Amino acid sequence: MPEMIGYIAATLTTASFLPQAILTIKTKDTESLSLSMYSLFTLGVFCWLVYGVCILDKAIIFANAITLVLAASILSFKIYNVLFKKG
Amino acid sequence: MPEMIGYIAATLTTASFLPQAILTIKTKDTESLSLSMYSLFTLGVFCWLVYGVCILDKAIIFANAITLVLAASILSFKIYNVLFKKG
Repeated sequence: MPEMIGYIAATLTTASFLPQAILTIKTKDTESLSLSMYSLFTLGVFCWLVYGVCILDKAIIFANAITLVLAASILSFKIYNVLFKKG
Repeated sequence: MPEMIGYIAATLTTASFLPQAILTIKTKDTESLSLSMYSLFTLGVFCWLVYGVCILDKAIIFANAITLVLAASILSFKIYNVLFKKG
């Protein structure tokens, strides 16, 4: 039972970044997104991935590899807008 | 060593929501935030908290209790804006 809740939790927190990535790619608007948040979060997810590789946990590797791609995409749009556009 | 990376990862992904919550509370602007993302994410973090309570893991409980407060605050602003303002 706890394992089941853990899997549901991991699926939800990983999948949640998909609609944000889609919205950001579609609108290219990142004004209300925090640069600090996505910088820290992307770095954190990268650390989770390294942790997963260290302890050879496939679920941690898989979930964080997906989240890393999504978070890094959102961060790229934010950095581009900060550098070349307003916010 | 892997434990250290795990702690760094947990600290980064938890702490990352603080600058987003501060930005959202300060500007009240949520236009580029995805409602689906914050709904799924807040629910997911709640599941992580329940999971932590089930397996009696203090680190999981602590990290997700903080993230839940931050994510729920951001979600509340988004829902308010969707209901009463534009986006």
